Amino acid sequence: MRIPEHIGIIPDGNRRWATENGLSKEMGYSHGLNPGLELLKLCKKIGVKELTFYGFTVDNTKRPSAQTNEFVKCCVDAVKLLSTENAELLVIGDTESKMFPKELLPLTKRHVFGKGGIKVNFLVNYGWDWDLSNLGKGKRKNIMSSIYSSDISRIDLIIRWGGRRRLSGFLPVQAVYADFYIIDDYWPDFKPEHFYEALEWYDKQDVTLGG
Amino acid sequence: MRIPEHIGIIPDGNRRWATENGLSKEMGYSHGLNPGLELLKLCKKIGVKELTFYGFTVDNTKRPSAQTNEFVKCCVDAVKLLSTENAELLVIGDTESKMFPKELLPLTKRHVFGKGGIKVNFLVNYGWDWDLSNLGKGKRKNIMSSIYSSDISRIDLIIRWGGRRRLSGFLPVQAVYADFYIIDDYWPDFKPEHFYEALEWYDKQDVTLGG
Repeated sequence: MRIPEHIGIIPDGNRRWATENGLSKEMGYSHGLNPGLELLKLCKKIGVKELTFYGFTVDNTKRPSAQTNEFVKCCVDAVKLLSTENAELLVIGDTESKMFPKELLPLTKRHVFGKGGIKVNFLVNYGWDWDLSNLGKGKRKNIMSSIYSSDISRIDLIIRWGGRRRLSGFLPVQAVYADFYIIDDYWPDFKPEHFYEALEWYDKQDVTLGG
Repeated sequence: MRIPEHIGIIPDGNRRWATENGLSKEMGYSHGLNPGLELLKLCKKIGVKELTFYGFTVDNTKRPSAQTNEFVKCCVDAVKLLSTENAELLVIGDTESKMFPKELLPLTKRHVFGKGGIKVNFLVNYGWDWDLSNLGKGKRKNIMSSIYSSDISRIDLIIRWGGRRRLSGFLPVQAVYADFYIIDDYWPDFKPEHFYEALEWYDKQDVTLGG
């Protein structure tokens, strides 16, 4: 089986999950923590080399403060939880805004936890336009190495939970050749079967890199 | 019904269509001409304001010359065919390469045909990295207006024929918030029903622009 080297995860549907379970919207985020850890373990097991989670974006911070406070907290908790595994963690996002949690500043340089191994990237207060704005300082024809997220490599497979078929600003440069797989279930309802289903589908795709 | 203002079209599957119909691969492209015209007419009928076709890319030009010669010719023919309609045409791509057909140079500035109306953009020798490379000259926080394709607006809905679920480098900036709809049939097998099906699906999506 052809295993994607780098998988991008859009863990959507936390608020809809909360509403359908009789909770207020912001209560959904914390139910996305364990799925992230479980997914990381599966990725390590099958030999995925890099995994990127879409935490929260600059766009997201326009939501009501009950939600923003909660998703910022949950992203900090998620990173802490992931750091209990052997992994090499990197947090990427606009650190100059007050929405960026200070606790995560040390991880804006990649840090090896335990024995290291898989690279895990976590986008926190990320903005596609923020990312590309660094190109103004770079040189032509060096796009991949000049964006702010240059430590994140090209993505092979993007899996999105929650049924929406869009990128919502997720790493536009690294996603140019990625295959997209959509899971209709909400992220808090993550099951290993979702992941296996995505991998089986990916195995059947050709890879042309636009050729 | 909520009609997308700007639709992006990835007309994929020409070569697979040719092979399945007992033709050599390059013979598929010309069968994509009439579908393009038919689609433009449908878009005008329902009030779409802007339509962008993915012609060919810099990546595509690495293919055998029998194919590259033919798809360049077909893109020129396609633009000519579209110019028989009332529309405002613009061709975008890297004109400094010899792969860019000289006949289309005048259309790299938008041109009104007939009574004008819908904006139609046609990507010819387009490269996502070429597009972004102009940002080196621009200012921060002005991404949309600083890329080479700045005359093409944000895309609401991308429809891709041929079953693949990926962007293949299609306008990464304009596509950040776009909804993706995939048609399994190949582009030469275009039917109006494909388009209506995509519109009905789009009507059921929410639009959050990442918020």
